[in-house]
Amino acid sequence: MYKAKAYSAASATSPLASTQIPRRDTTERDVQIEILYCGICHSDLHSVRDEWSSIMPTVYPIVPGHEIVGRVTKVGSAVTKFQPGDLAGVGCLVDSDHTCPNCRDGLEQLCPNQTLTFNSPDRHQTAPVTYGGYSESIVVDERFVLHVPANLQLAGVAPLLCAGITTWSPIRRWGDLNGKKVGVVGLGGLGHMGVKFAKAFGAHVVVFTTSPGKKEDALRLGAHEVIVSRNADEMQAHAGTFDFILDTIAADHDINAYLNMLGRDGNITLVGAPEKPLAVSAFALLFGRRSLSGSIIGGIAETQEMLDFCGKHDITADVEVIPIQKVNEAYERLVKSDVKYRFSIDMASLKAE
Amino acid sequence: MYKAKAYSAASATSPLASTQIPRRDTTERDVQIEILYCGICHSDLHSVRDEWSSIMPTVYPIVPGHEIVGRVTKVGSAVTKFQPGDLAGVGCLVDSDHTCPNCRDGLEQLCPNQTLTFNSPDRHQTAPVTYGGYSESIVVDERFVLHVPANLQLAGVAPLLCAGITTWSPIRRWGDLNGKKVGVVGLGGLGHMGVKFAKAFGAHVVVFTTSPGKKEDALRLGAHEVIVSRNADEMQAHAGTFDFILDTIAADHDINAYLNMLGRDGNITLVGAPEKPLAVSAFALLFGRRSLSGSIIGGIAETQEMLDFCGKHDITADVEVIPIQKVNEAYERLVKSDVKYRFSIDMASLKAE
Repeated sequence: MYKAKAYSAASATSPLASTQIPRRDTTERDVQIEILYCGICHSDLHSVRDEWSSIMPTVYPIVPGHEIVGRVTKVGSAVTKFQPGDLAGVGCLVDSDHTCPNCRDGLEQLCPNQTLTFNSPDRHQTAPVTYGGYSESIVVDERFVLHVPANLQLAGVAPLLCAGITTWSPIRRWGDLNGKKVGVVGLGGLGHMGVKFAKAFGAHVVVFTTSPGKKEDALRLGAHEVIVSRNADEMQAHAGTFDFILDTIAADHDINAYLNMLGRDGNITLVGAPEKPLAVSAFALLFGRRSLSGSIIGGIAETQEMLDFCGKHDITADVEVIPIQKVNEAYERLVKSDVKYRFSIDMASLKAE
Repeated sequence: MYKAKAYSAASATSPLASTQIPRRDTTERDVQIEILYCGICHSDLHSVRDEWSSIMPTVYPIVPGHEIVGRVTKVGSAVTKFQPGDLAGVGCLVDSDHTCPNCRDGLEQLCPNQTLTFNSPDRHQTAPVTYGGYSESIVVDERFVLHVPANLQLAGVAPLLCAGITTWSPIRRWGDLNGKKVGVVGLGGLGHMGVKFAKAFGAHVVVFTTSPGKKEDALRLGAHEVIVSRNADEMQAHAGTFDFILDTIAADHDINAYLNMLGRDGNITLVGAPEKPLAVSAFALLFGRRSLSGSIIGGIAETQEMLDFCGKHDITADVEVIPIQKVNEAYERLVKSDVKYRFSIDMASLKAE
């Protein structure tokens, strides 16, 4: 066991502050990673503030962060995939049971015995729960460590590990999007990645946003059209024409307005999780044989596939790089959606403390 | 034009009563059918009582009935598929525009310019709206007339034209159900057909019902198991295990309880249309990548496919045959779900009037 610098919160109302946390010594299958960048995901904020207490109560102190990119500093004796000096990524998961049907199918994100990167019971008992990426280093079973293409800007790679795979997975599974009309609802951390991926797959990409001010940026990111969802005429003009819509909104919203945008056999996949149930009109589903689905992050193999694709197509997240000392300020801005499109913490700032 | 005996309602609060209605003379492409049996669908009752006024206001007088089976009595000069003496069926549709993408794909039920069998503007202007199957005869474009296998009990064939195709279509489209675990929510006119079809496709069929009294009958109809949905322990024991669930409930119900029954990538398809929006938990969809869909009747080609399958596998609806003079009483019993599982009107009773 060794001590690593980190930022943690002591309670739901405490700011994140500098601390030291225990990290385990690398076991046979472990990879030790010096963290270079860690993205700030809205889940970090929800967990820090215990806003998901009903489904996943927070154990304090909490060290959030599951969009991790860094460099391998040490490997266990049985590690075969990595060696010191390699770039490496870690996402939302650091372990699973490896034996359930989902794990056997490479869908570790659906394993009932998964270990999340933070706030999950720690199998290695280094601490009561796992500690995430707001830290100078992390030790992870190699099966949950990803290879990162060398040609990409690392600050923008970090968010691929959650925002990236969360949008990649449903887009990829939908089928061949080439020439299809694809909507992306919400242009935030998830939405802007959805636009980039759908565009890369050859779709005609339309962004739905409540903010007319985001139009120009949506087009810059690759969207072909932008619909201001509060404009009933604009919405009506596109009714019944979409093949697939990726809905990234985590706040309450009128899902039927978007179901009505779908053509025959069209699908909306939710990747955001509004707390309150969505009011779904059965008629909106029946007419047109439409469907509403959910998707949650992705498996390790598909995460690697996404990273390789991003390397090949030079895709990263648009980030605002901050020093870790500004993390509390960043949380306040995140609540107001004041970020284009993800904060990425430069961990050199933590080392320098 | 000729006069035909029929039963119609004069207003939303009037009982159905004997009357005479105009029917057009057979044009080139028309088939004239002597109606032998007509099923009573809950839609008949909704329309007669104008309970769908917001989406489809009723024009009075109304002659309901869209589960029609009979014998061809006359054909137009250009008719090629039928000749006098043939058995024939007519379902929810009697015409469409034949040119839209849905029609071109054989999905007339999704045509924006379709003509419903009753209460739709009459293209032939024989009457303000189309008149349905509570009548001694009907005249229909041959493209909307189905062939009926000769080996089946005709009283039980009639409901196949709506309850049958409505459940067949989503079950068939789901994919190969052989060995899959399939749930059917609600054991009424639609549900009991869902059980028969899912069973015929080799599924392990589980009926969800609120009525413990329906257990024996569900097993008789072919279900392998029955879950009383009000029993939390029974529900919990099956959580996460279903591949596909057909939800036939038209009343408000807790859809999340059924979403949680689904395994990975599982789907619930709604064929009932509750008036109030369903409260759908995004979490129930995300965990397990589940989906919720809707489906509405079916196209003409798939209806024929279903009828042929029924002929081959000797499948009909379980019906209680009534004379048309008991139709108002049957409506009262339908409201109380007091029918196993569909009323089928013997039209000889109308002829005898």
